[in-house]
Formats: sequence, C-alpha cells, structure tokens
Amino acid sequence: MNGIAVRNIHRADHGAIETLERLGVATVHEAQGRTGLMLPYMRPVWRGARIAGSAVTALCHPGDNWMIHVACEMVKKGDVLVVACSSENSDGAFGELLATSLRALGCKGVVLDMGARDAAEISEMKFPLWSRAISAKGTVKATVGSVNVPVVCGGMAVKPGDVIVADDDGVVVVERKRAQEIAKAGEEREKKEAGSRSRLQKGELGLDIYGMRKGLEEKGLKYVDGPLD
Amino acid sequence: MNGIAVRNIHRADHGAIETLERLGVATVHEAQGRTGLMLPYMRPVWRGARIAGSAVTALCHPGDNWMIHVACEMVKKGDVLVVACSSENSDGAFGELLATSLRALGCKGVVLDMGARDAAEISEMKFPLWSRAISAKGTVKATVGSVNVPVVCGGMAVKPGDVIVADDDGVVVVERKRAQEIAKAGEEREKKEAGSRSRLQKGELGLDIYGMRKGLEEKGLKYVDGPLD
Amino acid sequence: MNGIAVRNIHRADHGAIETLERLGVATVHEAQGRTGLMLPYMRPVWRGARIAGSAVTALCHPGDNWMIHVACEMVKKGDVLVVACSSENSDGAFGELLATSLRALGCKGVVLDMGARDAAEISEMKFPLWSRAISAKGTVKATVGSVNVPVVCGGMAVKPGDVIVADDDGVVVVERKRAQEIAKAGEEREKKEAGSRSRLQKGELGLDIYGMRKGLEEKGLKYVDGPLD
Amino acid sequence: MNGIAVRNIHRADHGAIETLERLGVATVHEAQGRTGLMLPYMRPVWRGARIAGSAVTALCHPGDNWMIHVACEMVKKGDVLVVACSSENSDGAFGELLATSLRALGCKGVVLDMGARDAAEISEMKFPLWSRAISAKGTVKATVGSVNVPVVCGGMAVKPGDVIVADDDGVVVVERKRAQEIAKAGEEREKKEAGSRSRLQKGELGLDIYGMRKGLEEKGLKYVDGPLD
Amino acid sequence: MNGIAVRNIHRADHGAIETLERLGVATVHEAQGRTGLMLPYMRPVWRGARIAGSAVTALCHPGDNWMIHVACEMVKKGDVLVVACSSENSDGAFGELLATSLRALGCKGVVLDMGARDAAEISEMKFPLWSRAISAKGTVKATVGSVNVPVVCGGMAVKPGDVIVADDDGVVVVERKRAQEIAKAGEEREKKEAGSRSRLQKGELGLDIYGMRKGLEEKGLKYVDGPLD
Amino acid sequence: MNGIAVRNIHRADHGAIETLERLGVATVHEAQGRTGLMLPYMRPVWRGARIAGSAVTALCHPGDNWMIHVACEMVKKGDVLVVACSSENSDGAFGELLATSLRALGCKGVVLDMGARDAAEISEMKFPLWSRAISAKGTVKATVGSVNVPVVCGGMAVKPGDVIVADDDGVVVVERKRAQEIAKAGEEREKKEAGSRSRLQKGELGLDIYGMRKGLEEKGLKYVDGPLD
Repeated sequence: MNGIAVRNIHRADHGAIETLERLGVATVHEAQGRTGLMLPYMRPVWRGARIAGSAVTALCHPGDNWMIHVACEMVKKGDVLVVACSSENSDGAFGELLATSLRALGCKGVVLDMGARDAAEISEMKFPLWSRAISAKGTVKATVGSVNVPVVCGGMAVKPGDVIVADDDGVVVVERKRAQEIAKAGEEREKKEAGSRSRLQKGELGLDIYGMRKGLEEKGLKYVDGPLD
Repeated sequence: MNGIAVRNIHRADHGAIETLERLGVATVHEAQGRTGLMLPYMRPVWRGARIAGSAVTALCHPGDNWMIHVACEMVKKGDVLVVACSSENSDGAFGELLATSLRALGCKGVVLDMGARDAAEISEMKFPLWSRAISAKGTVKATVGSVNVPVVCGGMAVKPGDVIVADDDGVVVVERKRAQEIAKAGEEREKKEAGSRSRLQKGELGLDIYGMRKGLEEKGLKYVDGPLD
Repeated sequence: MNGIAVRNIHRADHGAIETLERLGVATVHEAQGRTGLMLPYMRPVWRGARIAGSAVTALCHPGDNWMIHVACEMVKKGDVLVVACSSENSDGAFGELLATSLRALGCKGVVLDMGARDAAEISEMKFPLWSRAISAKGTVKATVGSVNVPVVCGGMAVKPGDVIVADDDGVVVVERKRAQEIAKAGEEREKKEAGSRSRLQKGELGLDIYGMRKGLEEKGLKYVDGPLD
Repeated sequence: MNGIAVRNIHRADHGAIETLERLGVATVHEAQGRTGLMLPYMRPVWRGARIAGSAVTALCHPGDNWMIHVACEMVKKGDVLVVACSSENSDGAFGELLATSLRALGCKGVVLDMGARDAAEISEMKFPLWSRAISAKGTVKATVGSVNVPVVCGGMAVKPGDVIVADDDGVVVVERKRAQEIAKAGEEREKKEAGSRSRLQKGELGLDIYGMRKGLEEKGLKYVDGPLD
Repeated sequence: MNGIAVRNIHRADHGAIETLERLGVATVHEAQGRTGLMLPYMRPVWRGARIAGSAVTALCHPGDNWMIHVACEMVKKGDVLVVACSSENSDGAFGELLATSLRALGCKGVVLDMGARDAAEISEMKFPLWSRAISAKGTVKATVGSVNVPVVCGGMAVKPGDVIVADDDGVVVVERKRAQEIAKAGEEREKKEAGSRSRLQKGELGLDIYGMRKGLEEKGLKYVDGPLD
Repeated sequence: MNGIAVRNIHRADHGAIETLERLGVATVHEAQGRTGLMLPYMRPVWRGARIAGSAVTALCHPGDNWMIHVACEMVKKGDVLVVACSSENSDGAFGELLATSLRALGCKGVVLDMGARDAAEISEMKFPLWSRAISAKGTVKATVGSVNVPVVCGGMAVKPGDVIVADDDGVVVVERKRAQEIAKAGEEREKKEAGSRSRLQKGELGLDIYGMRKGLEEKGLKYVDGPLD
C-alpha cells in the first residue's frame, strides 16, 4: 500500500470523540487497558491544548512533506492529521502555512513524527501541534508516499479513522470501533478517581484507599524502624 | 537492601535547608566543589519552582510505581520525595493524584527518575516536580522495591535525609551532615558573585576581574591582530 | 589554529543583519537554498527571542569555559557569541554572570554548544541564549582553546563574522559575504508566502496553489475512493 | 486485545519464506517498495546469521518477560518469535535458557524489542537473535500481556504470520499474503543487480549504467572544473 | 570528598571473587536480587572477556584523565579499575599505554565511564576493558579529582573494594561485605538453572517447568483458539 | 555552494598520507593538537581496517544518495569518499554495489554520515567503511546536492583534498596543507610513546615517567592513608 491516496474513510462516533477529548490522554490510556500511547518523544509545540478527532493519516519520506499537501484534501472538519515517516527524521515538514491551510479546512490539530517549524507563529496561532522535534530544516516534494493507509506514528499503529487524543501528556490512539466503549470506561474511571482524590486531599494514604497493605506483605516487603545510619 | 521500607530517617538541619533553597542549584553545586549535580535529563515539569528538603527515597522497578505509595507514608512536612528506578524507564509513575496526596502530607516536591503524567494538572497545581520524561504510560503495582535506602537517581547517589535542592537548572544533592557547611560556603560564594556582578555590569571584563590574563599567557594563548580572512 | 585569539574580524553588513533578523530562521534557511541550519538540539533557553548578528567564535574544551572569558573582550555591540566545544559536552559553561557581562558589552545573544546554567535568571533578564542543554554543572578554566577561528557549532561550520540568525525554530548561519544576497532572497520569499497565505486562509488547497497535481500523477500517486475497511 | 493468547495462526508460504531468507533484508526491503524495515537500533547479538520465518508475536511490559514463556507454547518449527514491549525498555528479557527452549522447539530465531542477556552463550550457540540492547537486567513474571496479536516492534507493525527476514542489516517484515509476490520481485531485483555489479566491477560508472546524467542536468546540477581552492 | 587519593582499601574475599568471576554477570545479578547492574551503555571494547576483582575507583572530570594515573599507584594484583566522570563524557581517557601500565601492575581490567582509545591495540592485547564509547579524543591532565572514594559509574554506586564482575553482558557490582553470600547464592542458582536447562533441551515448556499456568490464569490471561484473521 | 559538482581538487602529499595511515587515528589526532576528530558515533562497519587518503566530498540529503553516484566520477586511486548529509539521517545510502564500484575505481574507503547497508557483504569484501548506523533503508535519487565542496561530516569540517585517517578508533581529518607537518609531528610522538611504553611495561608509574607528582600537589591533591571504611 505504497503510493496511494484514499479519499474517503470511516470516522469515529462524534459523541465518543467529545468525551475522549474531555477525559484527556492519561485517563483514556488507562481506560483502554494501558494501551495506545505514543512514545514520549511526541511533545506539544506549545503547552495547553487538548484535542481529539478522527485520524487522517499521511506517510511521508525523510526530508519530504509532499504527502501532507495531498492529505489536506482529505481532511474534514474535526479531523486530526497524523503524519508518519518511513524512517527517523526530524526535518521541518510542517509550518505556519500548512497550519493556516488546515485551520481553514477545519482540522483540529496535527501529530507529526517529523519536525515542526515556525514554532513561534504556530504557538501564537494556538494551532494544536505535537511533533518529535522543532526544526526549520526545509523539505522537498519529490517522493510519493501514501494517504489514509495504516501507519506507525510515535511507535504506535494508527489506522485512518482511529481517534487521536492529544494533550500536554502526549498522544494516545483509540481504535475507531472501540471509541464509545473506551469513552464510557474513561468516564467510570474519572468518577472513581474523583472519590480517591477527595480522600487523598484529606491526608488519607493511597496504601489504605487502594487496600495495598496486604499485597505488599504477601510480596515480602519488610518494614524496618530505622534510622539505619 | 531490597524489599525493605525504613520508617524513620535522620533529616537535615532546617536552617541549612532554608539557606540552600534560597541559594539555588547552581550556587549550591559550586559551593560543594562542583559535586552532587544530577544529570541534565532531570528537568522540571513546569518552570519557576525552587525547593529544598530532606530526601525520602523510593526504589521502583520499570513500569511499576508501587513503592511511591509506600513512600508516601514515610514523608513528613518539608520532605522531598526522590524516586529511583532499577533500570532506565520513562513510564508515567507519578501523576496528579499522587501529587494531591503528597501535597496533603506536606511534601515540598518530587524528583522522579521515571516519567510524569498529568503534566497540565500538576503545572496548574504548581506542585514542584522534576522528571526524566513526561509520559502518560500507566504503571502497575506488582513488584516490591524499597523505601528509604540509598539509591542512584539522575546519575547521583542519594541517601535518605540528604538535602535535595531543585530549580530550573536541575537538581543537586547535598550530604545531610555537610548541609550547614555547604549552606555557609554558598552564602560566601553569593557575596563574592555580587561583587563581580556589579563590576561586570559596568563593562569590566572577567579577564581583569578574575585576573586571568597571566594564566592564559602561561598556558600559551597567543593573541593575533586579525582579521585572518 | 589552536591556542590563538584573533582580535579583529570582518563583520557583516548592518542592513543585511537587520533584514535577516526580521525574516527569522525558517525563511532565511529556505532563502539560502536550505543550508546553514544548526541541528535541532540547539534550543532557546526561553521562548520568544529573535536575533541576528555577526559571529564572534570561541572554541572551548569539555568542562572548561575559559575561552568564553577571552571572547568577551572581542565582542562588539551587535555581535552574537558562538561557543563550540572540542567534544560533546553539556556542562554549564554559561550563566547569569557572563550574560550580565555580555549585555554590558552590547552582545545580542549567545549560541552555545554546551550547557546553560542560571536558566531562571537568564529568562528573567531576557538575555537571548540557545544551548544544547540546561545544566548547572560547573566548569574549570584550565585549558586553552581559541577565539575567532572557524568552528563547528551545532553541526554547522561557522566562521567569525558570519551572520547568526536565531529564534524559536533554532539557529541558522549565513556566510558573511552572502548576507545581502540572502537578505534580498528572503524578502522575496516572504512576499511570495504572503500570497500563498491569503489563498490558504480562504480554504484553497496547496495542491492547487503550488500546482502539484501533475507532478504527483507523474510520480505515480494513485487515488482510491475508499473507505478500505 | 490485551491479555489474550491466540493458539493458532496462519503461516506464510514455505517456499516464499525460503526465497526471502536467501535474498536477505536489503533486497527484500527494496523489493516491496522500500517498506517494512524495523528501525536501525534493532541489531544482531552476533554477526553472520540470516533467517526468515513466520512471526509468532508476544507483547510484554517493561521489566517483565512472562509472555515470552507463553509464546513458546505457540511456536512451531520454522517460526520466528517477535517480542514487542508496551514502552521503551532494554531489560534483559531473553537469555540462554529461553534460547535453549526455543531451539528445542524448532524456532529459527528471535527479534526482541527489549534487551538480550547471556550474549556470550547465545553467540556460541549461534542462536539467531536481534535486540535493541544487550543487558543482564533481570525481569519479573508479574503482568499479563498478549501472544499472537498485532504488535509494533522496532517501529514496524507486525501481525502474527507475517514473514520476518533478519540478517546483519537488521530486520524487515513482509505481510503474509504478499510473501510470494515479494519473493518473486526480490528475485528479479537480484538478477538486475547482478548485471549492474559486473559492469561496476569493470569500472563503469553508476551514472552511466543507471542513466542518471539527464536527470541530474534537469534538476540543475552544475559541473565546475575546479580546483576551487 | 573531592581532591583526595586514598592509598589503602579493604579488598573482597579472594575465593568469593573467583566464584563470582566464574558465574558471570547475569547469574551474579540475579543472585543478589536483581541489583547492582550498570546501565547497558557500558560495553566491552572486545568480546569474550570475563573478569572479577576488587574495585579501585577514580573520579575524573570531562576531557581529563589525570586521576587514572594517580589510581595506577593504588592498584594491586587482581584489582579492577573503575573510572567515573563528574559529567557525561565520551573522550578517550584510556588507551594502550595505560593498559600496558595496568597489565604490568597486575590489574585485571578496567570499567570506564568515558571513552576508550586504541581499540585495535587493546583488543589485540586482550586487555579487558568496558567503556561507554570508543573515541580517540585526547584528554588533558589539568583538574584534580579523587581516587578510592565512592563513585557512581554506569548509573551504579561503587565503593572501593566492592567486587566488579564484567563480561559480554555488561558489568555488575557486588558489595564487598556481601561477596561470599552472593557467590554462594549464585552457585545455587547455577545448579537450579542446570536442571531447567536439561528439561528445556528436551522440549519441555518453561510454563510447566516453572509452574506458571496457574498464575497466568489468576492474572486473567485468556486463551483463544484462533486464527483471528 | 549548493547544486555543484567540482571535477578537480588538490590532493595531499602522497608520502604524508602513507605516514598518517601507518600512525593511525589516535596518534594523528594528538599530533595535531587534539583537533580534527569526528564524533564517536562514526564507527567502522567491520573491525580491523586502517586507511588514509585525500577526501572527495559529497553532500547528500536525508533519504537520498544521488550525490554518491556523482562523486564516484571524481574519485581517483587512493581517495577516500566522505559523505555528509544536510540533516541527521541513518538511511542506508551506501551498499555493496557502490562499494564494488568504488573499489574498481581505486577508492580506499568511505566515511558516511548516513547509514550503511549490506553489512555482511561489505565486511566480507573488506571494503573499509565507517558510518553512523547500519540500515537497509533504501534511498531515492531525487534531490541534487553537491560534490567536492566543504562539508561537515561527523561533527567535523572537511574540505576536498584534506587527509582522512580512519581506523577502529574512528576518523580524524588533517588539513591538506598541514599533512606533512602533522605526519612529522606524529612520528615524533610515536618515538616518545615507545620510550614510555617500555618503562610502563617494567612497572614504572606514569606519575613518575611523566613527572606528574609536583603538579598534583600544586593543584591540591591530598593523599590519605585509608582504608576509610
């Protein structure tokens, strides 16, 4: 599946996307059994954004951002563009002009396994952007890749239409068909955490709230009075 | 000393801790003969905090944060929790719920040789946190480590009760018994630097203020008029 | 050319420097044919500065910042100090006292292939500083290097008097003799980008604005209707 | 798909596997359009092996190799075991005892996105093994992962039954259903390369053999007589 | 403890050292509860050595190997020299002349948290050497460090007289006072592994030999018949 | 100087090249005042080669090896091809076919700031090759770079005609005009080292041979009898 651009994709349930966006990366990742998280090198260009949307995917080659232009035509309002690269590369494949274009097209943000340029302008525009590096290194438009094919981005497999959730903690991928199930599981987790939070705020220990003492004893943890020195 | 949790530790002198906190990392590091600094990968999750306190130590295993929960019980008001890991790991062992708990317990901040999650929430809480990475990767509670044993964190040996000083420059460790001596040496260095600063502000050269010209000549530096091209 | 300090250098055209500063790193890099960019590990200590100036160069050794002091004497108003190191090293070779000195001497900023210390103070002073790391690790003054010789900094060759342009996107080097030519090319590029921007803002596709469709077809990109799953 | 172990998988065509093994990584990667290659950190523990086989996959967690034991039961003669990890981890998840077990079970080799231990013994056994690191760090058996589910290993998506080809150049993945097509394309490429090789050995230039001169001229390469200095 | 050279140290039990050497890194590391292993960047300059001995420690500064010369005077027959550095540095602090000197003095090998030079000559001499890098970068003798003080090397705390065990798997540290206990535990582990090995060679599964099936079921692993695709 | 290919270059003195080759990297690097060494990531694909020759340079772009083909036409008997890249890239730009071509043309070896493929075949051919990575990732021929212009390779500036010396310790660059001077300095250093070696073999200490004791005392090193624990 090299050299193809797929025009139409299935998108995820809109309500589920809204819930996943509100929950954020850490909760969603836990809610789906601690899976789907991209590697921690994928960082926001500016801090404070939180987005979710269906993935439109582009597979580029090192030093080449041609397929991002092709992908722009496939993006619909609410989508998140996910850019993978066929080898490790930090060249500046995405900058303020592409951000301007994608904003005009309704794109919610970009996850980029290459470098981002125009960091100041993109921060000022508040265009949500996660990348592996910030680099002004220019790219060419010389080699054909693909759009809307399955890719690996940030160490995680992404299929077109999967839900991408991204915030200051990084980026997590939710399979399209599981979006509603995970959104629901995340809301339950959120409620449970709220209960723990209020007890922790009063100074109760997690050891007691989560009932860990018995397990620690069984696994052989030994308490010693100390001090040892 | 694996699998033990030590309840009581000696803590460092309170006045020395206050002075070391005011002096900050760079001055304290110089004052103790350029030793004790953790590796530069240890970075604040948000910029602007400066703390010092006695170390409570936890030794975790990769992907597992169980011992942080055990360590919470040992933390007293004013302590800094230092989390080491038995191998290199950036999983998100510490997040907003643990920060809430530690704040309630009086902990001044955390130095974490693993990953931090809930970066936005922790920044908003202004809970002081230094870590090797930001990652939402969830952790398990499956393997016993130790609490309040000597550890290596950020490439530096830390014993329970040592003073941890942390700010935007990173993290430095001061041996508990030397805390007062180093605090005093730091204050002297501070005074000396104030004198240099006012002369530098007037445009005097460090070469003259620090009397470097003779040493440079002895070591063979040759001045050439130039330009060479 | 080891162990020499060159007092006088040719500097770049003042008007060209002003233009290059206004254009910024990404545009200048493109304008000179996508060359001259330092590696992306060279990052600002604080976000928001944009500077350009003639390079005064210093070649230090790992853990040693002596030559920065020697270089201070060579800096004139408007210069940018470029510090290279003879091997990879992140020690804190530059801090607030040196920043104070260089500001008094009219230096516009520093590009440092070593570590920066006093990150909080330098950010507050708004002294423009790019470095490979933030580290409080103290340095010695023991080994002679050179000042105002050609160096490699951030993976890029820099000669004394070359123009250094630096902003949130990183650092780019323009050869002194080409400064005016590149400034002019940059202004032309800027105008062209303004035209593209206004069309992109209206939702036109880059594919059409840049006329890419024919090239993509020639290179064999195949459109598929989809969805494929 | 977390916490499951799939007993039976489809395997790739035996003849195709034999051909792909003979062709080796570089040829196979080119033959399938320069796709499928794992990242270059995936290196052989010893040099000189070349294998191909159907993938049995295991998804482990950091510091934990339990699922490798589960996967052993699924391995059939001629398979290659592919071990992924839910986060970046170099702990020594695989050593001589597991190699002994897998050899007895007919496994052709292992591709491990964790660390390998017993490097000397495994080299002496000539058990084919690729890993991201060599490390004796012991692992636990505490957390359940999965066996024979799709994984990402070395930055590349692998499904159970895909063909894994590995040699001194690294590791390439061929989709199971395309194995015969790629084997054939590789053989054609091999023949073509043999022709080029004999001409290159006689001193003919690639520029002429591959007819590159016209393209270079069109893209604007300018020849200059020189020397320039 | 900066700037001191300690002449005499306690050394570990000779019989224990012999046993630990025979057992090798992986077994010793497991025998002491999976502790003491240096980070995996510490690699042998040539493959095939296995040594153990009491540690003589040197603390150097980046780009400076002076303290290695001081340490040579402290080395006795059978010792292993452990060289730490006050910051991350890969300069070539150790080469063939120092290897010649240490061999003459009876030193069994060197563990170097800096770079090694003369890789070909040292390999030919078969002088056992582990380092973080191979680099010919020359070092100076300008700054005083310490000899025979506690250090952190390869991410692990080492005290003078601790036993260093090193082979192709890396380097492990055994506390001096625990050397005999760990040697004994290692021999027991070795016997147990021999039993497992012979069963694995016959094709028995680790799942059965180690009795893992019940634990897997309790932790919720589900078997599925498959194939799933 | 982008997009040009320079046909003729000045080459270094043949006798000097022969001497520099015999001396090897570590000695040459020291003889020219500890300058010119490439970064330690530049490693031989196989161990045991030692070469020197005049540099023919090629500047490629990430994922593109077109300029290597252009450079082949410029290579004369005894040259060393130096391949730089406009950004960090480990794609497999050089393999067995290019090695075959360059061997036929008399090239002594290649220094490659990209990835090498066909590692097994190149090792068997004993074609001398240093690279930043081993990777089979295929490259395109789409973007024009330059041949025989000044480049930065492995963090070091290289001009066409400079002498490249490479062996198991890495790669060092000697300016063409200084080749004879450095060759002579290297031979003197070699003689001096021979004297030291024979004294070290007899067990004399470097401290005494190099007369270091007075300097150590002046810099404040204090000897302590010990043991301290």
